[in-house]
Amino acid sequence: MSKFPLMVVGTVAVDSVETPFGKKDAVFGGSASYFSYAASFFSPVNLVAVVGSDFPEEYRNVLKERPIGLEHLQTANGKTFHWKGKYEADMNAALTLETHLNVLLDFKPRLKAGHEPETLFLANIDPDLQMTVLDQVQRPKCRFIACDTMNYWIEQKRSALKKVLARVDMVVVNDGEARLLSEELNLIKAGRAIQALGPGIVIVKKGEHGALLFHGEKFFTLPAYPLEEVFDPTGAGDSFAGGVMGYLTKTADTGFENVKKAVVHGAVIASFTVEHFGLERLRNLREGEIEERLGQFQRICMF
Amino acid sequence: MSKFPLMVVGTVAVDSVETPFGKKDAVFGGSASYFSYAASFFSPVNLVAVVGSDFPEEYRNVLKERPIGLEHLQTANGKTFHWKGKYEADMNAALTLETHLNVLLDFKPRLKAGHEPETLFLANIDPDLQMTVLDQVQRPKCRFIACDTMNYWIEQKRSALKKVLARVDMVVVNDGEARLLSEELNLIKAGRAIQALGPGIVIVKKGEHGALLFHGEKFFTLPAYPLEEVFDPTGAGDSFAGGVMGYLTKTADTGFENVKKAVVHGAVIASFTVEHFGLERLRNLREGEIEERLGQFQRICMF
Repeated sequence: MSKFPLMVVGTVAVDSVETPFGKKDAVFGGSASYFSYAASFFSPVNLVAVVGSDFPEEYRNVLKERPIGLEHLQTANGKTFHWKGKYEADMNAALTLETHLNVLLDFKPRLKAGHEPETLFLANIDPDLQMTVLDQVQRPKCRFIACDTMNYWIEQKRSALKKVLARVDMVVVNDGEARLLSEELNLIKAGRAIQALGPGIVIVKKGEHGALLFHGEKFFTLPAYPLEEVFDPTGAGDSFAGGVMGYLTKTADTGFENVKKAVVHGAVIASFTVEHFGLERLRNLREGEIEERLGQFQRICMF
Repeated sequence: MSKFPLMVVGTVAVDSVETPFGKKDAVFGGSASYFSYAASFFSPVNLVAVVGSDFPEEYRNVLKERPIGLEHLQTANGKTFHWKGKYEADMNAALTLETHLNVLLDFKPRLKAGHEPETLFLANIDPDLQMTVLDQVQRPKCRFIACDTMNYWIEQKRSALKKVLARVDMVVVNDGEARLLSEELNLIKAGRAIQALGPGIVIVKKGEHGALLFHGEKFFTLPAYPLEEVFDPTGAGDSFAGGVMGYLTKTADTGFENVKKAVVHGAVIASFTVEHFGLERLRNLREGEIEERLGQFQRICMF
């Protein structure tokens, strides 16, 4: 067994975020950062990404707090990927103010020998890059592969994305992405239509409304963990995916019952993430806090 | 025990409905019609409403299919309340094209002696009318009272509505109404704020996303029963409330655990309603179909 059985490829970023609760520049962000930190509560994770020469040592140290392998975190000349976004009062959709790809433009993920993952997550990134990583892992040694995507790639690179989808076991998308990808407004139909593109398992994230799981013929629906205060929704989806994949990697079981549990774990991790800017809340998780919230969650959903 | 322990006051209407699946004029509708028919699967119900002299005997016969008391269904000179609405592709919000109050304008609900209800539901109707009914029932003989409302009354008759809310045990509103009434965007805060207006129990309906239950300090969250085809959402909220109140009346227990069960029953009844125009689907429920769907619902929510 590899030291880092779970691998993620995605972005590591410096964000500027504005919410009704405050404004913060230089927030440590990126899909792979949130994913890794969240997943690391369940499984060691190998992070594949690129940063610029400006990437603060302080952020690298944040990742080092957890069992996150940084052998594949390349440093390139130039600036780190930067995203600037804003949330209006309803907190449901981010308004992207600026995106500076910077070093991401020339990113070529290359997996080193001896780091073959058992499970792989292709976080939201250009589907062509997702494919270059897919081409570097070997089935069935890599026993479970999942991916995320976003509206931009669905619209601009649908055919490249479809090739990726045909080769993964699971996809994690939000409701808007699911509708756009499937061209179905009804989310149940959308989930089924996405399964038909390849992945036997489809998870549709609905933010404050929870998530839907399509697993072969089986179906599971989960409300969201109720929060009175969503401080900053950035990274919720990536943390969710991290929790799901971390749990699936740890338990090595992708049957329906266990994926359900993974979805619940993902939802709980994401519910912590949104309680503060960036990774702050996850960094300050107390021992036992995840288990505690899992218990509360089950109690308020049970009937 | 009265022959009709549950009473509802609301509207009986003739609707014109357009959905992406079709268009139908002269659909039997109205808040009290949907409520009564849905509730009648659990408890006999006394319907308090007014219709015009044009009200088709055929519709009256629909109500007679079930244990629905019509002693308080007044017939007034004039035309029956008419609503014309349309649903766009996303099926979440009705676009009201026309509203003709007609005989509703002079409606004065008067409860006959010997018909004191054990439980009462004030369906969506002018809060002043809700209050005249409240004034005619006696506590604690009427042991449980709940109400619904809509954006129009929240905006136009907030103070009358607040007086009603201060006197009921439970309120059932949708997410938009909850936000408007509480002036809170976060639905958990909104539910708590509405409790502070009087009703110890608040149910927030979220359509395709399920429902939230606030019961004293306790909380329950339920996803929606997944439907691939929502044919006509009209009456979903009223059927839901009917299922909830019917179940609570039948079981005579308004503790948290039982209200949770009532919410699940309401959701199941509403999931049938939207499968066809008007009351068509509820009229064609097979023996055992409710129990069957309750079982399926529990299976897809359980973790």
